[in-house]
Amino acid sequence: MNTFGRLLRVTTFGESHGPAIGCVIDGCPPGIALAPEDFAHDLARRATGRSRHTSQRREADEVEILSGVYAGTTTGTPVALLIRNVDARSKDYGAIARQFRPGHADYAYWQKYGHRDPRGGGRSSARETTMRVAAGVIAKKWLGERFGVTVRGHLARLGEIVPNAHDWSVVEDNPFFWPDAAQLGELESRMDALRKSGDSVGARVAVEAIGAPPGWGEPVYGKLSAEIGAAMFSINAVKGVEIGDGFDSVAQKGSEHRDLMRADGFESNHAGGILGGISTGQPIRVAVAFKPTASLRLPAPTLDVDGEEVEIVTTGRHDPCVGIRATPICEAMLALVLMDHALRHRAQCGDVGEVAPRLTG
Amino acid sequence: MNTFGRLLRVTTFGESHGPAIGCVIDGCPPGIALAPEDFAHDLARRATGRSRHTSQRREADEVEILSGVYAGTTTGTPVALLIRNVDARSKDYGAIARQFRPGHADYAYWQKYGHRDPRGGGRSSARETTMRVAAGVIAKKWLGERFGVTVRGHLARLGEIVPNAHDWSVVEDNPFFWPDAAQLGELESRMDALRKSGDSVGARVAVEAIGAPPGWGEPVYGKLSAEIGAAMFSINAVKGVEIGDGFDSVAQKGSEHRDLMRADGFESNHAGGILGGISTGQPIRVAVAFKPTASLRLPAPTLDVDGEEVEIVTTGRHDPCVGIRATPICEAMLALVLMDHALRHRAQCGDVGEVAPRLTG
Amino acid sequence: MNTFGRLLRVTTFGESHGPAIGCVIDGCPPGIALAPEDFAHDLARRATGRSRHTSQRREADEVEILSGVYAGTTTGTPVALLIRNVDARSKDYGAIARQFRPGHADYAYWQKYGHRDPRGGGRSSARETTMRVAAGVIAKKWLGERFGVTVRGHLARLGEIVPNAHDWSVVEDNPFFWPDAAQLGELESRMDALRKSGDSVGARVAVEAIGAPPGWGEPVYGKLSAEIGAAMFSINAVKGVEIGDGFDSVAQKGSEHRDLMRADGFESNHAGGILGGISTGQPIRVAVAFKPTASLRLPAPTLDVDGEEVEIVTTGRHDPCVGIRATPICEAMLALVLMDHALRHRAQCGDVGEVAPRLTG
Amino acid sequence: MNTFGRLLRVTTFGESHGPAIGCVIDGCPPGIALAPEDFAHDLARRATGRSRHTSQRREADEVEILSGVYAGTTTGTPVALLIRNVDARSKDYGAIARQFRPGHADYAYWQKYGHRDPRGGGRSSARETTMRVAAGVIAKKWLGERFGVTVRGHLARLGEIVPNAHDWSVVEDNPFFWPDAAQLGELESRMDALRKSGDSVGARVAVEAIGAPPGWGEPVYGKLSAEIGAAMFSINAVKGVEIGDGFDSVAQKGSEHRDLMRADGFESNHAGGILGGISTGQPIRVAVAFKPTASLRLPAPTLDVDGEEVEIVTTGRHDPCVGIRATPICEAMLALVLMDHALRHRAQCGDVGEVAPRLTG
Repeated sequence: MNTFGRLLRVTTFGESHGPAIGCVIDGCPPGIALAPEDFAHDLARRATGRSRHTSQRREADEVEILSGVYAGTTTGTPVALLIRNVDARSKDYGAIARQFRPGHADYAYWQKYGHRDPRGGGRSSARETTMRVAAGVIAKKWLGERFGVTVRGHLARLGEIVPNAHDWSVVEDNPFFWPDAAQLGELESRMDALRKSGDSVGARVAVEAIGAPPGWGEPVYGKLSAEIGAAMFSINAVKGVEIGDGFDSVAQKGSEHRDLMRADGFESNHAGGILGGISTGQPIRVAVAFKPTASLRLPAPTLDVDGEEVEIVTTGRHDPCVGIRATPICEAMLALVLMDHALRHRAQCGDVGEVAPRLTG
Repeated sequence: MNTFGRLLRVTTFGESHGPAIGCVIDGCPPGIALAPEDFAHDLARRATGRSRHTSQRREADEVEILSGVYAGTTTGTPVALLIRNVDARSKDYGAIARQFRPGHADYAYWQKYGHRDPRGGGRSSARETTMRVAAGVIAKKWLGERFGVTVRGHLARLGEIVPNAHDWSVVEDNPFFWPDAAQLGELESRMDALRKSGDSVGARVAVEAIGAPPGWGEPVYGKLSAEIGAAMFSINAVKGVEIGDGFDSVAQKGSEHRDLMRADGFESNHAGGILGGISTGQPIRVAVAFKPTASLRLPAPTLDVDGEEVEIVTTGRHDPCVGIRATPICEAMLALVLMDHALRHRAQCGDVGEVAPRLTG
Repeated sequence: MNTFGRLLRVTTFGESHGPAIGCVIDGCPPGIALAPEDFAHDLARRATGRSRHTSQRREADEVEILSGVYAGTTTGTPVALLIRNVDARSKDYGAIARQFRPGHADYAYWQKYGHRDPRGGGRSSARETTMRVAAGVIAKKWLGERFGVTVRGHLARLGEIVPNAHDWSVVEDNPFFWPDAAQLGELESRMDALRKSGDSVGARVAVEAIGAPPGWGEPVYGKLSAEIGAAMFSINAVKGVEIGDGFDSVAQKGSEHRDLMRADGFESNHAGGILGGISTGQPIRVAVAFKPTASLRLPAPTLDVDGEEVEIVTTGRHDPCVGIRATPICEAMLALVLMDHALRHRAQCGDVGEVAPRLTG
Repeated sequence: MNTFGRLLRVTTFGESHGPAIGCVIDGCPPGIALAPEDFAHDLARRATGRSRHTSQRREADEVEILSGVYAGTTTGTPVALLIRNVDARSKDYGAIARQFRPGHADYAYWQKYGHRDPRGGGRSSARETTMRVAAGVIAKKWLGERFGVTVRGHLARLGEIVPNAHDWSVVEDNPFFWPDAAQLGELESRMDALRKSGDSVGARVAVEAIGAPPGWGEPVYGKLSAEIGAAMFSINAVKGVEIGDGFDSVAQKGSEHRDLMRADGFESNHAGGILGGISTGQPIRVAVAFKPTASLRLPAPTLDVDGEEVEIVTTGRHDPCVGIRATPICEAMLALVLMDHALRHRAQCGDVGEVAPRLTG
């Protein structure tokens, strides 16, 4: 299942150290202006090698549009995007081709398929998420132009560090997507120490979509929350997803949690903009937990394919915190889910909707 | 999208206070022994009216097998199950047919469809989960008989109360699915107080599958974690899902989180039995956050369909904590995802797998 | 795969002689007026026992709407329809439970599943098509009300007899759906002779949709023609499908076949209203070949489940020509495909379309 | 819908005169030996420029494997194939960018999408079928190696010419895939005359799969026949599909059509190897009607995008009979359907099947 979405269907392919990665975006409406340079901004946000705090692999990530665009706009036929892998040093991985890296997909893939592509994690590498970000560019563009929807995100926790302040205006000015400029020094020290130690740390990413109209999402198994859940859990290293208040809801009372409606809008947004799996018109809020990278320079015992115990050290280029670059990936997935549901809503309900007063706030 | 699953496809239908609810289970292997009484146990575990702590609606929940079973076993054709609604008092809801209950799907459905079925929440009612539990019975049975897989669960938090001890043997002996018998009095007092106050509270449910072989799950968008995420978020009132250590992973170091492999098995299970979206053979562990019930006897301001502010009081029969009855629902969804993936794995990989040593622990 | 369609998804269930048959129609737009009596007309057209020329099984076919309709209109949630089987004489079939009826699905099902439901063909019975006709009622209604589309059909050949004249006004006045009233006597004699002989005969059915706008259908695998092909071939006993000139196209020259366009419309309709898999606005024309019924009173050699040769005689109530009752089934399938594509078109293209002049003729 | 198949999913992309065409094959089992040169034979069979009787466009069709293969075998992850377009002369088409070629998809695409890619038919070009043939290579290989299934085909009619003899051994020795060597001169004269006249003609292609075990195919909407029907109708220019006796069944009696079973096998194969939508173990036989090419050098009236009448002449490089090169395409589609169903059967039924004696003949 390398396809995501129901009406807007994104199929990705490619291995970390194979000749190329790419995707096919099917179901895209005609008439969307699209050029290779549209992808540059978000791909750069996701790219490695942007600061010393991420993997030093250099991903040039030049997107070639292979199909689906004519005279500068989408035609309605599938949009295929291709990125050649240019700095894929397979030799980094040769030594561990027969060993199972702890915390990695190696053992699970081997058990499933009887063998695996050891080059940089092959298909299980986060390299795949590049194409999600590329596809997400189209979704963000369409959602913005047609509905005025904005999708944005930030790092919401790095290990034990949480933001002290929340200022959207600084998020894009630092390589961490961190909303409190005063803490950047602390983050850098933390990451430098980690990198030096050879260890890694987890992170929490928060994303939101503002401006989505009420009525997107479908009962029962096509709930917006269900498909956002699937989207986020399909990202490498994700171990938890929350909508709105998430796990905090467990300790809340109903009188506290339920968002009251007034003529001038909702009084609060504990629900995270989704009720019954359908958008309410409020901001859609999602948080995602990323586990610490499993590729460490710290030696550890593990098994090889013959079941023998061996010691393993992962020496390739890795992110000490995968969550740092995950903000644009989570944004892309949220945008793709919303665009898919916008199309699905239009299919079933056409111009119905908005018959009750639309609330804001 | 009232269908769940890819090879094992469960389509549910029916409204809370309509004539009946039901489901069609397509893709079921032939030869599974199945009789109406097989459903009784799990449906009773989910049913309302079991104790004073849940809704007093009496759900008899007699399952009729309409198709797909001949001479006591499944034939391979679709299994349709039907339950007539017998204690559906629509009159309870008449007063609020034109009002949007805060925290409910009312407003979102109205915006989506231009009207809604006000009888007991219609399609958005948790009544629908009855059919998930019924379908899950087949999945649990098949997983158990063919692979020795056990799926089980318990309540892991009720409001601010967390279990002090963990004893699986007591879970099924109390209406809360609580693993610490010593706390039952405290839970009962808490629930009695809530009921009296007209308020509600959230809950956390933990479920696990033991014995699933390594190799189930598919890269990239068909990750076991992604589909478990979707499955759980498709349940009413769910606001968060965790696999393994979940959000605790955020504060962990990689050296702490990664599960080391030894010849005699994994040393730990922070991953919750899933790496790269594929099962490792360890117990698959999932936690789910349920928000507090939105139907309260406490009056609150809200809007009606004309946008006028009104005061609303929900007087029907409701659960003060929906999480209490959610354990069998979460188990069912986990079982359905696993059975679907077992079939998918067999399709693609046949007898491949288990070429490396299978680990336990 | 007991589900048909992509956005309008019809899932059917039930065996010929089981307790009931039914379907779930998911993705139906809200606001369609729908009552149990809406199904009566088309179900009667398909029903057995209408004349001496069809099976004498009496199908009362009372439709119960189990869900998805509130206050007389669809709500947007799944519409479940149920029909109890009332004249299912399983004893008719007992004798041949271990024998494979030649020309039937018995052997293939047994090989697939390891056993089969012998009661009246079980799931492989044309009884299933009742639910297609029921679902088709909704599609016809919606297509008619929203787009002015009419779907209709007639028998176009019975054995070696072809219509001498074509008069739509007589089609619904005879049990054969035959367009030439002058030939009815000949058809009756032919059928009486067949019934007496214990043999059966094939038939050709022609259906068409008038008024479908240009632009429905999707490249490449979602071509209207491809999905009409699948729809028709999914009907029991179908061995061939043609769009427009069909197999006659083989002997045509391009200059003959291509439909020229003039300002006042197309000059001809060899294409059958579909080019490149997408509707052109012309009538969509489909022809379907039905093989002769395999259930004959004429004895024949066959095998039993142990591989022993036995003689078989099928004594149940059967149609000497399944094609006679097939017209409403083919209409239903065409309507379902078109409604599904209308929704898919709206999803992707919204109000685009009709930018070039719309042609008629 | 540019994806075909359910478990073996082939997604194709690319326009006739765009930079490249390609496909992604998802769900492919691991362990299939695969190299770029495996595609050469079937691609050459389909290629233009092979004789003077097909389009003179030269398709080099060098396949690059972008993913899914490691150390010479498939890994289980998606196999992406890419072919650069090398002889795409877009200038041939410039003059008619605003005109609707009669019998082409131009008008339908324009109505659907509001514009179209005029370069060589864009997405509606038969160029797309190259990737079907490429994907079919994998299916043929797997079916052959695992089940001993052979898929083959031949031209069965060209305009009014039908084969006088049937000799499989000569089919691959002539550019027509014609089974009677004695008629090759007649075919060549016919084609030379056509080419000279600027006209085109239709064709009939017959394909078959030998060796498929009984039990493949699914009731009801997943019938082997239904999906073969969809597969064939998804090919450009197809107007009719038959399974087994096809439209000849219409005039047959049941006693004539039904294939009797004896201990040593079936006595005949009118059914074309499929009963109830499920394979019987006999050869699966399919015939396909191709309309005459619509691109003619003969002038004709048509409309332009403003609705004005204009005269059109198609001057590009075209096949005077598209059916000539269609044999490998039909084979590929049949192979893809069968492989998909082999996987689906394994998923649901595992090792069940073949419990009754397997018949041949």
